[in-house]
Amino acid sequence: MALALDDAAQNLLFREAHTAQTFADTPVSDEQIHAVYDLIKLAPTAFNLSPLRLTLVRTPEARERLVQHMSEGNKQKTRTAPLTAILSTDLDFHERLPELFPAVPGLKDSLFAELETREQHGRFNAALQAGYFLLGVRAAGLAAGPMTGLDAGSVDKEFFGDGKQRTLLVVNIGLPGEDAFRPRAPRLAAAEAVTTV
Amino acid sequence: MALALDDAAQNLLFREAHTAQTFADTPVSDEQIHAVYDLIKLAPTAFNLSPLRLTLVRTPEARERLVQHMSEGNKQKTRTAPLTAILSTDLDFHERLPELFPAVPGLKDSLFAELETREQHGRFNAALQAGYFLLGVRAAGLAAGPMTGLDAGSVDKEFFGDGKQRTLLVVNIGLPGEDAFRPRAPRLAAAEAVTTV
Repeated sequence: MALALDDAAQNLLFREAHTAQTFADTPVSDEQIHAVYDLIKLAPTAFNLSPLRLTLVRTPEARERLVQHMSEGNKQKTRTAPLTAILSTDLDFHERLPELFPAVPGLKDSLFAELETREQHGRFNAALQAGYFLLGVRAAGLAAGPMTGLDAGSVDKEFFGDGKQRTLLVVNIGLPGEDAFRPRAPRLAAAEAVTTV
Repeated sequence: MALALDDAAQNLLFREAHTAQTFADTPVSDEQIHAVYDLIKLAPTAFNLSPLRLTLVRTPEARERLVQHMSEGNKQKTRTAPLTAILSTDLDFHERLPELFPAVPGLKDSLFAELETREQHGRFNAALQAGYFLLGVRAAGLAAGPMTGLDAGSVDKEFFGDGKQRTLLVVNIGLPGEDAFRPRAPRLAAAEAVTTV
Protein backbone atom coordinates (compact mmCIF):
# COMPACT_ATOMS: atom_id res chain seq x y z
CA MET A 1 0.00 0.00 0.00
CA ALA A 2 1.70 3.20 -1.21
CA LEU A 3 1.63 6.24 1.04
CA ALA A 4 1.28 9.81 -0.19
CA LEU A 5 4.48 10.80 1.63
CA ASP A 6 7.44 10.50 -0.74
CA ASP A 7 10.09 7.83 -0.15
CA ALA A 8 12.84 10.32 0.73
CA ALA A 9 10.69 11.76 3.51
CA GLN A 10 9.65 8.30 4.75
CA ASN A 11 13.32 7.36 4.92
CA LEU A 12 14.41 10.58 6.62
CA LEU A 13 11.70 10.47 9.30
CA PHE A 14 11.19 6.75 9.85
CA ARG A 15 12.84 4.05 7.79
CA GLU A 16 16.48 5.15 7.86
CA ALA A 17 16.33 7.15 11.09
CA HIS A 18 17.59 5.67 14.35
CA THR A 19 17.99 6.82 17.94
CA ALA A 20 21.62 7.99 18.25
CA GLN A 21 23.87 6.85 21.11
CA THR A 22 26.88 8.97 20.07
CA PHE A 23 27.15 12.32 18.30
CA ALA A 24 29.58 14.16 16.02
CA ASP A 25 31.07 17.47 17.23
CA THR A 26 29.14 19.54 14.65
CA PRO A 27 27.24 22.21 16.61
CA VAL A 28 23.44 22.45 16.65
CA SER A 29 22.19 26.04 16.75
CA ASP A 30 19.23 27.49 18.60
CA GLU A 31 17.96 28.58 15.18
CA GLN A 32 17.78 24.96 14.01
CA ILE A 33 15.64 24.00 17.01
CA HIS A 34 13.45 27.08 16.57
CA ALA A 35 12.88 25.96 12.95
CA VAL A 36 11.92 22.49 14.20
CA TYR A 37 9.50 24.00 16.71
CA ASP A 38 8.00 26.30 14.09
CA LEU A 39 7.21 23.21 12.00
CA ILE A 40 5.89 20.88 14.70
CA LYS A 41 3.83 23.51 16.54
CA LEU A 42 1.35 23.21 13.64
CA ALA A 43 0.41 19.62 14.52
CA PRO A 44 -2.71 19.22 16.67
CA THR A 45 -3.23 19.27 20.44
CA ALA A 46 -6.58 19.17 22.24
CA PHE A 47 -8.03 22.71 22.47
CA ASN A 48 -4.74 23.84 20.91
CA LEU A 49 -3.31 23.60 24.44
CA SER A 50 0.27 23.48 23.13
CA PRO A 51 1.74 22.68 26.58
CA LEU A 52 5.20 21.47 25.45
CA ARG A 53 8.20 23.61 26.40
CA LEU A 54 11.81 23.08 25.37
CA THR A 55 14.82 23.99 27.49
CA LEU A 56 18.00 23.87 25.42
CA VAL A 57 20.89 22.98 27.70
CA ARG A 58 23.97 24.52 26.13
CA THR A 59 26.55 25.91 28.59
CA PRO A 60 28.93 23.44 30.29
CA GLU A 61 27.59 24.56 33.67
CA ALA A 62 23.97 23.90 32.70
CA ARG A 63 25.00 20.58 31.15
CA GLU A 64 26.57 19.41 34.43
CA ARG A 65 23.50 20.51 36.38
CA LEU A 66 21.47 18.20 34.15
CA VAL A 67 23.92 15.29 33.91
CA GLN A 68 23.93 14.75 37.68
CA HIS A 69 20.24 13.77 37.49
CA MET A 70 20.61 11.36 34.56
CA SER A 71 20.95 7.61 35.10
CA GLU A 72 24.51 6.25 34.82
CA GLY A 73 24.04 4.92 31.30
CA ASN A 74 22.86 8.32 30.06
CA LYS A 75 25.49 10.58 31.68
CA GLN A 76 28.33 10.35 29.15
CA LYS A 77 26.21 10.85 26.04
CA THR A 78 24.39 13.77 27.66
CA ARG A 79 27.78 15.34 28.47
CA THR A 80 29.06 15.01 24.91
CA ALA A 81 26.05 15.61 22.65
CA PRO A 82 26.23 18.98 20.81
CA LEU A 83 22.90 19.98 22.35
CA THR A 84 20.52 18.51 24.91
CA ALA A 85 16.87 19.54 25.23
CA ILE A 86 14.66 19.09 28.28
CA LEU A 87 11.09 18.56 27.07
CA SER A 88 8.62 19.64 29.74
CA THR A 89 4.95 20.30 30.33
CA ASP A 90 4.01 23.87 31.22
CA LEU A 91 1.37 23.50 33.96
CA ASP A 92 0.39 27.13 33.40
CA PHE A 93 -0.52 26.47 29.75
CA HIS A 94 -4.03 27.72 30.52
CA GLU A 95 -2.77 31.29 30.83
CA ARG A 96 -2.27 31.32 27.05
CA LEU A 97 -5.67 29.85 26.12
CA PRO A 98 -7.42 33.20 25.51
CA GLU A 99 -5.01 33.63 22.55
CA LEU A 100 -4.57 29.96 21.61
CA PHE A 101 -8.22 28.92 21.68
CA PRO A 102 -10.35 32.03 21.26
CA ALA A 103 -13.30 29.91 20.01
CA VAL A 104 -14.19 29.05 23.63
CA PRO A 105 -13.70 32.13 25.79
CA GLY A 106 -13.17 31.47 29.47
CA LEU A 107 -11.63 28.01 29.05
CA LYS A 108 -8.74 29.16 31.23
CA ASP A 109 -11.03 29.74 34.20
CA SER A 110 -13.45 26.86 33.65
CA LEU A 111 -12.27 23.47 32.31
CA PHE A 112 -8.59 24.16 33.08
CA ALA A 113 -8.89 26.11 36.32
CA GLU A 114 -7.77 23.14 38.45
CA LEU A 115 -4.10 22.12 38.60
CA GLU A 116 -4.97 18.41 38.61
CA THR A 117 -6.86 18.75 35.30
CA ARG A 118 -3.97 20.70 33.82
CA GLU A 119 -1.46 18.04 34.92
CA GLN A 120 -3.45 15.29 33.21
CA HIS A 121 -4.28 17.09 29.95
CA GLY A 122 -0.94 18.87 29.93
CA ARG A 123 1.10 15.69 30.20
CA PHE A 124 -0.87 13.87 27.51
CA ASN A 125 -0.80 16.72 25.01
CA ALA A 126 2.86 17.53 25.71
CA ALA A 127 3.63 13.85 25.04
CA LEU A 128 1.84 14.10 21.67
CA GLN A 129 3.98 17.15 20.93
CA ALA A 130 7.10 15.29 22.09
CA GLY A 131 6.31 12.68 19.41
CA TYR A 132 6.01 15.45 16.82
CA PHE A 133 9.27 16.99 18.07
CA LEU A 134 11.30 13.77 17.75
CA LEU A 135 10.19 13.51 14.12
CA GLY A 136 10.86 17.24 13.71
CA VAL A 137 14.48 16.78 14.82
CA ARG A 138 14.82 14.19 12.07
CA ALA A 139 13.12 16.59 9.64
CA ALA A 140 16.01 18.96 10.34
CA GLY A 141 18.47 16.26 9.25
CA LEU A 142 19.58 15.62 12.83
CA ALA A 143 19.48 12.52 15.01
CA ALA A 144 17.61 12.46 18.31
CA GLY A 145 18.52 10.44 21.39
CA PRO A 146 15.44 10.52 23.67
CA MET A 147 15.99 9.40 27.27
CA THR A 148 13.63 8.64 30.14
CA GLY A 149 16.38 7.27 32.42
CA LEU A 150 16.63 10.27 34.75
CA ASP A 151 15.26 11.61 38.02
CA ALA A 152 12.51 13.84 36.65
CA GLY A 153 11.61 15.34 40.03
CA SER A 154 15.22 16.43 40.59
CA VAL A 155 15.46 17.91 37.08
CA ASP A 156 12.27 19.84 37.84
CA LYS A 157 13.79 21.28 41.02
CA GLU A 158 17.09 22.06 39.29
CA PHE A 159 15.63 23.81 36.23
CA PHE A 160 12.02 24.67 37.10
CA GLY A 161 12.29 25.82 40.68
CA ASP A 162 8.97 27.65 40.50
CA GLY A 163 7.18 24.28 40.12
CA LYS A 164 5.40 25.36 36.95
CA GLN A 165 7.00 22.85 34.57
CA ARG A 166 7.31 19.07 34.72
CA THR A 167 10.07 17.21 32.89
CA LEU A 168 8.77 14.68 30.34
CA LEU A 169 11.82 13.56 28.40
CA VAL A 170 15.43 14.61 27.80
CA VAL A 171 16.69 14.46 24.21
CA ASN A 172 20.27 14.57 22.93
CA ILE A 173 20.43 16.19 19.50
CA GLY A 174 23.12 16.26 16.82
CA LEU A 175 24.61 14.53 13.84
CA PRO A 176 25.32 10.86 14.59
CA GLY A 177 28.88 10.02 15.69
CA GLU A 178 30.89 6.80 15.41
CA ASP A 179 28.97 3.58 16.11
CA ALA A 180 25.95 5.76 16.82
CA PHE A 181 23.26 3.19 16.17
CA ARG A 182 22.26 -0.05 17.85
CA PRO A 183 20.61 -2.65 15.62
CA ARG A 184 16.90 -1.87 15.35
CA ALA A 185 14.87 -4.03 17.70
CA PRO A 186 11.85 -5.88 16.26
CA ARG A 187 8.49 -4.11 16.05
CA LEU A 188 4.98 -5.52 16.36
CA ALA A 189 3.37 -6.41 13.04
CA ALA A 190 0.38 -4.28 12.04
CA ALA A 191 -1.85 -7.33 12.47
CA GLU A 192 -0.75 -7.57 16.12
CA ALA A 193 -1.31 -3.91 17.01
CA VAL A 194 -4.39 -3.18 14.89
CA THR A 195 -7.81 -4.83 15.38
CA THR A 196 -10.94 -4.17 13.30
CA VAL A 197 -14.43 -4.35 14.83
CA MET B 1 16.52 28.08 8.48
CA ALA B 2 15.99 25.36 5.86
CA LEU B 3 15.02 21.87 7.04
CA ALA B 4 16.23 18.66 5.40
CA LEU B 5 12.64 17.50 4.92
CA ASP B 6 11.41 18.55 1.47
CA ASP B 7 8.68 21.18 1.11
CA ALA B 8 6.07 18.76 -0.23
CA ALA B 9 6.47 16.57 2.85
CA GLN B 10 6.44 19.59 5.21
CA ASN B 11 3.21 20.71 3.58
CA LEU B 12 1.58 17.26 3.64
CA LEU B 13 2.41 16.58 7.29
CA PHE B 14 2.30 20.02 8.88
CA ARG B 15 1.83 23.23 6.93
CA GLU B 16 -1.19 22.41 4.76
CA ALA B 17 -2.67 19.70 7.00
CA HIS B 18 -5.59 20.46 9.29
CA THR B 19 -7.79 18.58 11.72
CA ALA B 20 -10.92 17.61 9.73
CA GLN B 21 -14.43 18.22 11.09
CA THR B 22 -16.26 16.59 8.13
CA PHE B 23 -15.28 13.77 5.79
CA ALA B 24 -15.97 12.67 2.20
CA ASP B 25 -17.64 9.28 1.61
CA THR B 26 -14.49 7.75 0.10
CA PRO B 27 -13.76 4.58 2.10
CA VAL B 28 -10.58 4.06 4.13
CA SER B 29 -9.34 0.47 4.07
CA ASP B 30 -7.76 -1.57 6.85
CA GLU B 31 -4.76 -1.93 4.51
CA GLN B 32 -4.25 1.84 4.49
CA ILE B 33 -4.14 1.93 8.30
CA HIS B 34 -1.85 -1.10 8.42
CA ALA B 35 0.51 0.77 6.06
CA VAL B 36 0.39 3.80 8.40
CA TYR B 37 1.18 1.59 11.39
CA ASP B 38 4.02 -0.15 9.54
CA LEU B 39 5.58 3.28 8.98
CA ILE B 40 5.08 4.83 12.42
CA LYS B 41 5.99 1.71 14.41
CA LEU B 42 9.61 2.50 13.49
CA ALA B 43 9.68 5.71 15.54
CA PRO B 44 11.10 5.40 19.05
CA THR B 45 9.52 4.46 22.37
CA ALA B 46 11.34 3.90 25.67
CA PHE B 47 12.67 0.32 25.83
CA ASN B 48 10.83 -0.20 22.50
CA LEU B 49 7.70 -0.68 24.66
CA SER B 50 5.40 -0.02 21.67
CA PRO B 51 2.25 0.07 23.86
CA LEU B 52 -0.12 1.75 21.36
CA ARG B 53 -2.99 -0.36 20.02
CA LEU B 54 -5.51 0.66 17.35
CA THR B 55 -9.12 -0.52 17.23
CA LEU B 56 -10.67 0.30 13.85
CA VAL B 57 -14.39 0.85 14.34
CA ARG B 58 -16.02 -0.09 11.06
CA THR B 59 -19.42 -1.82 11.34
CA PRO B 60 -22.52 0.33 11.99
CA GLU B 61 -23.13 -1.61 15.20
CA ALA B 62 -19.62 -0.99 16.52
CA ARG B 63 -19.86 2.65 15.47
CA GLU B 64 -23.03 3.17 17.55
CA ARG B 65 -21.44 1.43 20.54
CA LEU B 66 -18.69 4.04 20.35
CA VAL B 67 -20.82 7.10 19.50
CA GLN B 68 -22.91 6.76 22.68
CA HIS B 69 -19.77 7.49 24.74
CA MET B 70 -18.65 10.53 22.71
CA SER B 71 -19.48 14.07 23.83
CA GLU B 72 -22.41 15.69 22.00
CA GLY B 73 -20.23 17.75 19.69
CA ASN B 74 -18.32 14.68 18.56
CA LYS B 75 -21.24 12.28 17.91
CA GLN B 76 -22.28 13.26 14.39
CA LYS B 77 -18.79 13.36 12.91
CA THR B 78 -17.93 10.02 14.52
CA ARG B 79 -21.09 8.52 12.98
CA THR B 80 -20.28 9.77 9.48
CA ALA B 81 -16.49 9.48 9.15
CA PRO B 82 -15.40 6.66 6.80
CA LEU B 83 -13.39 5.10 9.62
CA THR B 84 -12.87 5.79 13.31
CA ALA B 85 -9.91 4.48 15.31
CA ILE B 86 -9.75 4.05 19.08
CA LEU B 87 -6.14 4.60 20.16
CA SER B 88 -5.43 2.77 23.40
CA THR B 89 -2.62 1.73 25.72
CA ASP B 90 -2.08 -1.99 26.13
CA LEU B 91 -1.38 -2.44 29.85
CA ASP B 92 0.00 -5.91 29.09
CA PHE B 93 2.69 -4.51 26.78
CA HIS B 94 5.31 -6.12 29.02
CA GLU B 95 4.34 -9.59 27.77
CA ARG B 96 5.97 -8.71 24.42
CA LEU B 97 9.22 -7.30 25.85
CA PRO B 98 11.25 -10.52 25.53
CA GLU B 99 10.87 -10.09 21.73
CA LEU B 100 10.73 -6.30 21.58
CA PHE B 101 13.69 -5.54 23.87
CA PRO B 102 15.93 -8.60 23.96
CA ALA B 103 18.91 -6.45 25.02
CA VAL B 104 17.65 -6.50 28.63
CA PRO B 105 16.29 -9.97 29.41
CA GLY B 106 13.79 -10.14 32.24
CA LEU B 107 12.48 -6.59 31.87
CA LYS B 108 8.96 -8.00 31.81
CA ASP B 109 9.34 -9.41 35.32
CA SER B 110 11.47 -6.65 36.84
CA LEU B 111 10.96 -2.98 35.90
CA PHE B 112 7.50 -3.56 34.37
CA ALA B 113 6.13 -6.22 36.70
CA GLU B 114 3.84 -3.75 38.51
CA LEU B 115 0.62 -2.54 36.88
CA GLU B 116 1.07 1.01 38.20
CA THR B 117 4.46 1.29 36.48
CA ARG B 118 2.98 -0.06 33.26
CA GLU B 119 0.11 2.43 33.42
CA GLN B 120 2.51 5.35 33.73
CA HIS B 121 5.10 4.31 31.13
CA GLY B 122 2.43 2.81 28.89
CA ARG B 123 0.36 5.97 28.74
CA PHE B 124 3.34 8.22 28.05
CA ASN B 125 4.82 6.04 25.33
CA ALA B 126 1.43 5.34 23.74
CA ALA B 127 0.89 9.13 23.62
CA LEU B 128 4.24 9.54 21.82
CA GLN B 129 3.05 6.89 19.35
CA ALA B 130 -0.32 8.64 19.02
CA GLY B 131 1.60 11.74 17.89
CA TYR B 132 3.46 9.63 15.32
CA PHE B 133 0.15 8.07 14.21
CA LEU B 134 -1.60 11.40 13.59
CA LEU B 135 1.28 12.40 11.32
CA GLY B 136 1.18 8.91 9.76
CA VAL B 137 -2.48 9.36 8.81
CA ARG B 138 -1.44 12.54 7.00
CA ALA B 139 1.46 10.65 5.40
CA ALA B 140 -1.20 8.38 3.85
CA GLY B 141 -2.85 11.42 2.26
CA LEU B 142 -5.74 11.31 4.71
CA ALA B 143 -7.06 13.80 7.23
CA ALA B 144 -7.28 12.99 10.93
CA GLY B 145 -9.84 14.30 13.40
CA PRO B 146 -8.49 13.49 16.88
CA MET B 147 -10.97 13.80 19.77
CA THR B 148 -10.61 13.70 23.55
CA GLY B 149 -14.24 14.71 24.21
CA LEU B 150 -15.51 11.27 25.29
CA ASP B 151 -16.05 9.12 28.36
CA ALA B 152 -12.84 7.08 28.22
CA GLY B 153 -13.80 4.81 31.11
CA SER B 154 -17.04 3.85 29.36
CA VAL B 155 -15.25 3.24 26.04
CA ASP B 156 -12.85 0.98 27.94
CA LYS B 157 -15.74 -1.05 29.36
CA GLU B 158 -17.52 -1.18 25.99
CA PHE B 159 -14.53 -2.27 23.90
CA PHE B 160 -11.92 -3.56 26.37
CA GLY B 161 -14.00 -5.48 28.85
CA ASP B 162 -11.00 -7.43 30.08
CA GLY B 163 -9.52 -4.23 31.51
CA LYS B 164 -6.24 -4.66 29.65
CA GLN B 165 -6.46 -1.56 27.45
CA ARG B 166 -7.07 2.10 28.26
CA THR B 167 -8.52 4.51 25.72
CA LEU B 168 -6.22 7.46 24.95
CA LEU B 169 -7.81 9.20 21.98
CA VAL B 170 -10.44 8.57 19.30
CA VAL B 171 -9.56 9.62 15.75
CA ASN B 172 -11.86 10.05 12.74
CA ILE B 173 -10.03 9.28 9.51
CA GLY B 174 -10.84 10.00 5.86
CA LEU B 175 -10.60 12.48 3.05
CA PRO B 176 -11.86 15.91 4.12
CA GLY B 177 -15.49 16.72 3.27
CA GLU B 178 -17.24 20.06 2.70
CA ASP B 179 -16.23 22.87 5.05
CA ALA B 180 -13.93 20.39 6.76
CA PHE B 181 -11.50 22.86 8.28
CA ARG B 182 -11.79 25.55 10.94
CA PRO B 183 -9.37 28.47 10.60
CA ARG B 184 -6.07 27.52 12.20
CA ALA B 185 -5.78 28.96 15.71
CA PRO B 186 -2.59 30.87 16.61
CA ARG B 187 0.45 28.97 17.84
CA LEU B 188 3.13 30.01 20.31
CA ALA B 189 6.21 31.53 18.70
CA ALA B 190 9.40 29.48 19.02
CA ALA B 191 10.83 32.20 21.26
CA GLU B 192 7.92 31.68 23.69
CA ALA B 193 8.17 27.88 23.88
CA VAL B 194 11.95 27.45 23.67
CA THR B 195 14.42 28.70 26.28
CA THR B 196 18.22 28.33 26.15
CA VAL B 197 20.31 27.91 29.31
